[in-house]
Amino acid sequence: MTSAARARRVTIADVAREAQTSTASVSYALNGRPGISEATRERVLEVAARLGWSPASAARALAGAGADTIGLVLTKDPRDLSVEPFYMQFIAGVESALAVRSRGLLLEVAADADAEVEAIRRWRGSRRVDGVLLTDLRPHDQRIAVVREAGVPAVAVGDPSAAAGLTTVWTDDAAAMRQAVQHLAALGHRRITRVAAPRRYAYTAIRDDAFDQTARACGLDHDIVRSDLSEDAGAVATRAVLSSPRPPTGLIFDNDIMAVAALTTAHQRGLSVPGDVSIIAWDDSLLCRLVTPGLTALSHDVVALGAQAARRLLDVIDGAEPAVYQEATPMLQVRASTGPAPTEA
Amino acid sequence: MTSAARARRVTIADVAREAQTSTASVSYALNGRPGISEATRERVLEVAARLGWSPASAARALAGAGADTIGLVLTKDPRDLSVEPFYMQFIAGVESALAVRSRGLLLEVAADADAEVEAIRRWRGSRRVDGVLLTDLRPHDQRIAVVREAGVPAVAVGDPSAAAGLTTVWTDDAAAMRQAVQHLAALGHRRITRVAAPRRYAYTAIRDDAFDQTARACGLDHDIVRSDLSEDAGAVATRAVLSSPRPPTGLIFDNDIMAVAALTTAHQRGLSVPGDVSIIAWDDSLLCRLVTPGLTALSHDVVALGAQAARRLLDVIDGAEPAVYQEATPMLQVRASTGPAPTEA
Repeated sequence: MTSAARARRVTIADVAREAQTSTASVSYALNGRPGISEATRERVLEVAARLGWSPASAARALAGAGADTIGLVLTKDPRDLSVEPFYMQFIAGVESALAVRSRGLLLEVAADADAEVEAIRRWRGSRRVDGVLLTDLRPHDQRIAVVREAGVPAVAVGDPSAAAGLTTVWTDDAAAMRQAVQHLAALGHRRITRVAAPRRYAYTAIRDDAFDQTARACGLDHDIVRSDLSEDAGAVATRAVLSSPRPPTGLIFDNDIMAVAALTTAHQRGLSVPGDVSIIAWDDSLLCRLVTPGLTALSHDVVALGAQAARRLLDVIDGAEPAVYQEATPMLQVRASTGPAPTEA
Repeated sequence: MTSAARARRVTIADVAREAQTSTASVSYALNGRPGISEATRERVLEVAARLGWSPASAARALAGAGADTIGLVLTKDPRDLSVEPFYMQFIAGVESALAVRSRGLLLEVAADADAEVEAIRRWRGSRRVDGVLLTDLRPHDQRIAVVREAGVPAVAVGDPSAAAGLTTVWTDDAAAMRQAVQHLAALGHRRITRVAAPRRYAYTAIRDDAFDQTARACGLDHDIVRSDLSEDAGAVATRAVLSSPRPPTGLIFDNDIMAVAALTTAHQRGLSVPGDVSIIAWDDSLLCRLVTPGLTALSHDVVALGAQAARRLLDVIDGAEPAVYQEATPMLQVRASTGPAPTEA
């Protein structure tokens, strides 16, 4: 609904104000129920007619048409949300696109995938949102079945292979991963390890495959360690990897927080970065710039990604056909945390 | 409204389903309007009576009682939002309190104070939220007048002196500032400067006064420089301050981002931190921990602050009387960015 249309919609409150009575009395009068005087009823009906109130507009309001709001559910521990810059950047981008169209963002943090589906169902049931953004796509994502069944306009943020035909906004993570691996290979690294997000994210398999294929093509020893994107898990994974008999000399992390934790862990063990081990982060951020040495990172404009996702969702709500929008591929921002591989002892 | 109450509320959609007709027909029938057959009207009225639909419940729905949503408008450039950890921490805290009560958060980023007031009015007009959180209180904040007039349940996050009797959640910024100034005085600093937020925030005057009084009580030369909380402005202010004929040896910033920028600026000028200048940040964060040297910072649990604000707003929505809740005073977390004052040349 445009704001002009919203400005014109006459509500029971408008009628009550004009008729100088309560909204309850207006409701009684308009619904033909007892409990008010005939004088009030007549005054209300006259005002309602004059202002153009109609049961159709009331029914629309009841049905929630034009909620002028989109929904975003994040399946994250609230404390993790506040640490990882990605989500606030994404939300900031969504907001920047909604602000110019006077739309609101309904945000909910869900404990798990089931709770997320429940939130989408509940919003749809109460017509609270016009559409939803789906992030952190999972393989065979049940949310996609739910929005399809319920006819909820939706945009998937992630690889089109996981979006099952929904309008999709994506970045080419495989191409980004190739850059990271090739950067380490060009610096002479022969053993590298990827510290990866859990398999429940669809992007994990895409990055895994690109890592494997590129490392193999470059003739590198390579390994993948599973972690959970938190600072603590990043430190634990780094300690384990660096304690192995022949530790890798290059590490690629699936986010910035784990890479920052790895830097601290390496320093605590008396290792030089990049003298002994090179570190690459995904999701470049202020954190990556500010640590010493600065972290080489895959840099993408997450604010722009959020804005694009929101704009495309507004299109879908307006009836646009499903389409796929590719955003700029994350580029490797080289800083001081990567350097030539150490010479073998 | 509890979810049990929500489950019991009979909607026009329920009546339509049971009466096997459209919601529009139900609305027409219940509102006594022409446009449907008498048979349909009778069936609808019978079903509505049987299910316990009432105009009161419909009016409640129209009036938006139990939107099960609270609103938060932030007056920030969306890109700044994504940089400053404070806001995501606050939102994470709000979400953690709402999640356990299955409430949503409607979030909007407004360009300025007028746009923020407009958003609150619009939400209230469309009954989209049950109440609002007001952050970054301003002196004589017009939002407070608006929520009072419109009877919107609200909680102010900030000093009670700026909250005009609304339920308030606050931290004692004056006590926090005293700690910071006394820490520098104890280290032998004799000239200190505060790099402050704009005067449009109510907390600015409170911190200004505490800075002035404590510095005077400690017999320190002291000055206040106005900035805007951004990274760039922090760097500009730091350059100006450090270029003065007798530069201060201690700096206290109003957030973490400006303090981080000051650290970089000092290093670029070949100054040692804390050898030449000591730096203190407000709003301790991962950034403060990760830079080298780590930043001494006023540390408070912003996630807990957000959770408390949300819980108190749910109380107000449930009819609680206005009250004032003081959260723990920010504590000075001493790290390597503060040290003994340099000996005078």
